[in-house]
Amino acid sequence: MRVSILVSLLLGTALGLPTALLAQDLRQPVESYADATQKEILSNLMAALQFPAVAADEVNIRRKASYLRGELAKRRFLSEILETDGNPLVYGTLLVPEASRTLLLYCHYDGQPVDPAKWQQADPFQPVMMDGKLSHDSQVIDFESAESFDDDWRIYARSASDDTAPIIGLLVALDALKDAAIPLTSNIKVILDGEEEDGSPSLVSAIERYRDRLAADLLLIFDGPLHQSDRPTVVFGARGIMTLDLTVFGPRAPLHSGHYGNWAPNPAMQLAQLLASMKDAEGRVLLEGFYDGIDFTPGDQRVLDAVPDNLEELKTALGFSQPDKVGNSLQEAIQYPSLNVRGLESGWVGAEARTIVPDSAVAAIDIRLVQETKPDDIYAKLTTHIESQDFHIVTEDPDDATRAEYGRIVKVIRRGSTNAYRTALSNPMAQQVVAAINGVWDGPIVQKRTSGGTVPIAPFIEALDIPALGIPTVNFDNNQHSPDENVRLGHFFDSIVTFAAIFTM
Amino acid sequence: MRVSILVSLLLGTALGLPTALLAQDLRQPVESYADATQKEILSNLMAALQFPAVAADEVNIRRKASYLRGELAKRRFLSEILETDGNPLVYGTLLVPEASRTLLLYCHYDGQPVDPAKWQQADPFQPVMMDGKLSHDSQVIDFESAESFDDDWRIYARSASDDTAPIIGLLVALDALKDAAIPLTSNIKVILDGEEEDGSPSLVSAIERYRDRLAADLLLIFDGPLHQSDRPTVVFGARGIMTLDLTVFGPRAPLHSGHYGNWAPNPAMQLAQLLASMKDAEGRVLLEGFYDGIDFTPGDQRVLDAVPDNLEELKTALGFSQPDKVGNSLQEAIQYPSLNVRGLESGWVGAEARTIVPDSAVAAIDIRLVQETKPDDIYAKLTTHIESQDFHIVTEDPDDATRAEYGRIVKVIRRGSTNAYRTALSNPMAQQVVAAINGVWDGPIVQKRTSGGTVPIAPFIEALDIPALGIPTVNFDNNQHSPDENVRLGHFFDSIVTFAAIFTM
Repeated sequence: MRVSILVSLLLGTALGLPTALLAQDLRQPVESYADATQKEILSNLMAALQFPAVAADEVNIRRKASYLRGELAKRRFLSEILETDGNPLVYGTLLVPEASRTLLLYCHYDGQPVDPAKWQQADPFQPVMMDGKLSHDSQVIDFESAESFDDDWRIYARSASDDTAPIIGLLVALDALKDAAIPLTSNIKVILDGEEEDGSPSLVSAIERYRDRLAADLLLIFDGPLHQSDRPTVVFGARGIMTLDLTVFGPRAPLHSGHYGNWAPNPAMQLAQLLASMKDAEGRVLLEGFYDGIDFTPGDQRVLDAVPDNLEELKTALGFSQPDKVGNSLQEAIQYPSLNVRGLESGWVGAEARTIVPDSAVAAIDIRLVQETKPDDIYAKLTTHIESQDFHIVTEDPDDATRAEYGRIVKVIRRGSTNAYRTALSNPMAQQVVAAINGVWDGPIVQKRTSGGTVPIAPFIEALDIPALGIPTVNFDNNQHSPDENVRLGHFFDSIVTFAAIFTM
Repeated sequence: MRVSILVSLLLGTALGLPTALLAQDLRQPVESYADATQKEILSNLMAALQFPAVAADEVNIRRKASYLRGELAKRRFLSEILETDGNPLVYGTLLVPEASRTLLLYCHYDGQPVDPAKWQQADPFQPVMMDGKLSHDSQVIDFESAESFDDDWRIYARSASDDTAPIIGLLVALDALKDAAIPLTSNIKVILDGEEEDGSPSLVSAIERYRDRLAADLLLIFDGPLHQSDRPTVVFGARGIMTLDLTVFGPRAPLHSGHYGNWAPNPAMQLAQLLASMKDAEGRVLLEGFYDGIDFTPGDQRVLDAVPDNLEELKTALGFSQPDKVGNSLQEAIQYPSLNVRGLESGWVGAEARTIVPDSAVAAIDIRLVQETKPDDIYAKLTTHIESQDFHIVTEDPDDATRAEYGRIVKVIRRGSTNAYRTALSNPMAQQVVAAINGVWDGPIVQKRTSGGTVPIAPFIEALDIPALGIPTVNFDNNQHSPDENVRLGHFFDSIVTFAAIFTM
C-alpha cells in the first residue's frame, strides 16, 4: 500500500466528513515511529505469542490476560481483569479530553487449539520468523541478529494473526500517536475476549455485570483477514447460522433390498425427495417466504458491486463453473440466507456397501441467517414446508404407534443458532471510519455489507445494541485455524497506520 | 405337515399329470425308514457338519468334497471330483433304467464364514443339538444317549441349513426309496458347489469343461428356507442385480458454508435432486421404459395372489405402514425391477458435522433385475435419464477442464451385475414337481414366481439353458448367514419326503 495524498484529500473533502488531520500528517509520523522501533515492536509481538493461550488452558489464558493487562496499563489505560462465567476479559479504558465519541475495541487473546505434529515448527507457541511464506527454500530469520525487517517476512505462531497481532498493533498505534503528539479524538475502550475460539460463551452474560464499562458509541472488531484483493477492508455485518439434523425413517432395521426392494419404503430416497423439494435447480430456496424482507438500496448495490471479487478466478480456484443463482454475484449471494446440506448419511457406500434398504437417512443442514431473517421464523418456515411434503415431524425416534400411523416420518432436531448482525452502510460513524481508512491508504477500501461466515461476537453486538464494524487487517493467507498460522510483517505494520487513522478520525 | 391323501389324489387326477405312485404309497415307507434310522441319519448329518468348509479354506473344502463324494459312491453314484478354476465340484450320477428324464440337483457344500465369538457354542463346526430354538432356558441334547428325537429339536452348526442338510436329505431320500424298493423315475445327477457363499465364481466356466456331465432336463436347486408360512415352497425364479455408484462433484475441496453458501454449488443437494427425479412419491421408478415388457398372465396373477404373505403382520414387524406402490402386494412388487438407494454419504453428520459445502456426494445404488430386464438395457436407461437431468456423466474424477466446462458433473461407476432367471410357471416339468410335492403334503404349496433376492447360480442356469426350480426345505428361522445357524429336525425329515416325491414323480 502506498499513500495517496490526493485521494485522501479528495475523499476527506468530498465526503464532507470531519477528519482530524490530513492523511499525510498522520501516516508519516506513525510509519517513522514504527520504522525506528521496528525490532522492539516485533519483539513485543513475539513475547505476546509465547503463551499457550487456548481457551481450555485456564492457567496460560490467565497468564496472557495478566500480561496484556500490563501492556494496557503501560499506555495509561485504567485496566482490569473482568471475571466472567468462563475465562476472564481484559479491559482497559483511556479517556480523552473533549473526545467526540467512545470507541469500544474488541479483540480476542485466545487462539485455536493446536496439533503440533502438523506444524512445521516444533512448538506453535515459540514464534518463528521466516523470510517469507513457507516453502521448500524459505529460511528462518535469526531475530536477535536482524537489524531491519522486510515486509514480506512472517511470524509463525498460533494466534499470530488470529488475534494477537491486532492487539499489539492497536497498542503500537497509540504509542506512535503519543510519540508524535497527535491527539486522539475518541475515548478508547478495549475489551479482550479469552474464549472466542470456543464460541465466546461468557461474553453476553458479562454485559449485565459490566454494562457501564462497555458503554460506547461504536464497537470495532479488530479481527480477521483483509479481502483477497489485499485492499483495506471494513465489514458491516456477518451472517448468522442455525443448524439442524433431519432424519427420515424407513423400516425398523435395514432390510434385504432383494427381498423387500420395491415394497419397503426407502428413507434415503424419501430424504432425497424432501431435500430436492427445498431448492430449485439453480440453488434458490423454495421454502415459502424464505427470502422475505431482503432488499438492497441503490447505494447498497453500488457497494456490493464495488467489492473487487474476481469471480472467474475464484471459480477456477475452487473447481466449479456454475455457481448457484441466489444472487448475481458472490457478494449478492451472501446478503441472502442460505440452506446448505452439509452432510448426508444412510446405509453404506463404497467397499462397505451392502444390498439393503436402509433403516434411516440423515441430512445435516446449516441455514445461514441475515439481519432480516430470525431463527424462529426460518424454523417455522422449514417445518411448514416439510409438512407440506407429507412428512410427519417428530423430535424423537418414532415408536411403534408412530410408525404404524404415518407413512413418511422425519425427525427434525434444531441445534444451536447465532443471529446475524449488520450495521447500515449509511451509518455516519461507520462512514467516518471508512473515510479515515480511505484517508491513509491508496484506493477505495472494500466495504463488505455482510460477510458470509458467522462470528461468535454477534450476540454480544446484538445485546450491546450499538453499531459495530469489523476492521480486519492481517494477510488473507494467514492459515487462520490451521497449522502454520502466521502474520505477514507488512500487514502488521500497515494495521498500525489503519488503527491510528481510526483513533484520530 | 400331515399327509392328505385326498388332496394328493385329487391333484394328481385333476392335473392329469403322471404320478408314479400315490402319495400314501410313498410317504409312509419313507417316513418309516427315517423313523427306524433316525439316529444314524442325524449322526451322518452331524458328521458332514464337522468340516470347517468355508470357500476360502481350500484344505477343509477338499476334505468335505472328498467325504461327500464318498457318500455319493456309497449310493452307487458314479462320482467324481471335478476340478474348476477354484474349489472343486463334487459330481455324481445315478442312472435309472427307463428313466423319463434327467434331474440335475444342485446344492453347495461350503458355508458362510464364521465369527465364532458371536456364536453361542464354542465352535460353529462342532454341531450342537438343542431342545428347540435358542432361548435362555434351552437345553443341549446329549446326542449319544438320546434314543428318539423331537421334530422341534435343532442342530446348530455353520452350514447346517445352508446348505448341508439338503445334501444329506437327498441321500437319505434315495436310501429310503431303495429300502422300500420304490423305483426312481428320473436319472439323478448331483452337482455340489464349493464356492456358493463366495458367489460361485468358477461355476459358469466349469460348464464348458463338463458339459456332458451336466446335461439334464431340469435343474433343481436344493437350497434356502421355506416361505414364512412354513408351507412347502417351489421357487421359479430370482431377481438379478446390478450395482452402481453415483458421485456428484461440487467444489474441489469442502468450502466454508458461510463464505460460499448460496454461491458454491452443493453436490449433496444436486445428488438429492438427481435421485428424487428417479422415483415418484410412491416409489415407482420414473426412468423411461424401466418397467417395459413386464406383464402377468391371469394364471401368473392367481399364483402371486395365492402366496400366503401376511402383509399387515409383516409391515408391523418391519416397522412401517406405507409400502411403495410398484405392485399391489409384496409378491407383485418383486416381479418388477427395483431401484434402491442403499447408501448415501456426503460431508459429515452428527457430532462430526462441519459447516461446509461438501466437495462431493455419493449414492450407492442397487437395481434388482427381473427376467424381462437386462443390465445393459437398464444401464442405458439410467444414463439417458441422468443426462436428461442436465448432468454430465464421467467415469473418473473430473479434471480441471471438465470442472470448467460442465455445471453438474456425476461420476457413474457400474459395478457387477447378475442376471435374473425365471422358469415359466406353466412349464410342464415344473408343474410335475409342484404336483409331486403337493401329493405328499397337505394343502397347496407356495409357488414363488420370482424371489426377490439374487442367487449366484443364475448365470449357471442361464448358461445351462434348461428350466430350473428352487426347492427350499429348511426352517425360515435358520439364521442363515448369521451366527447360530441351525436346522430344525422336523424340517430336515420333511425334506426327505419332499425329495423322495420328486425322485419318483
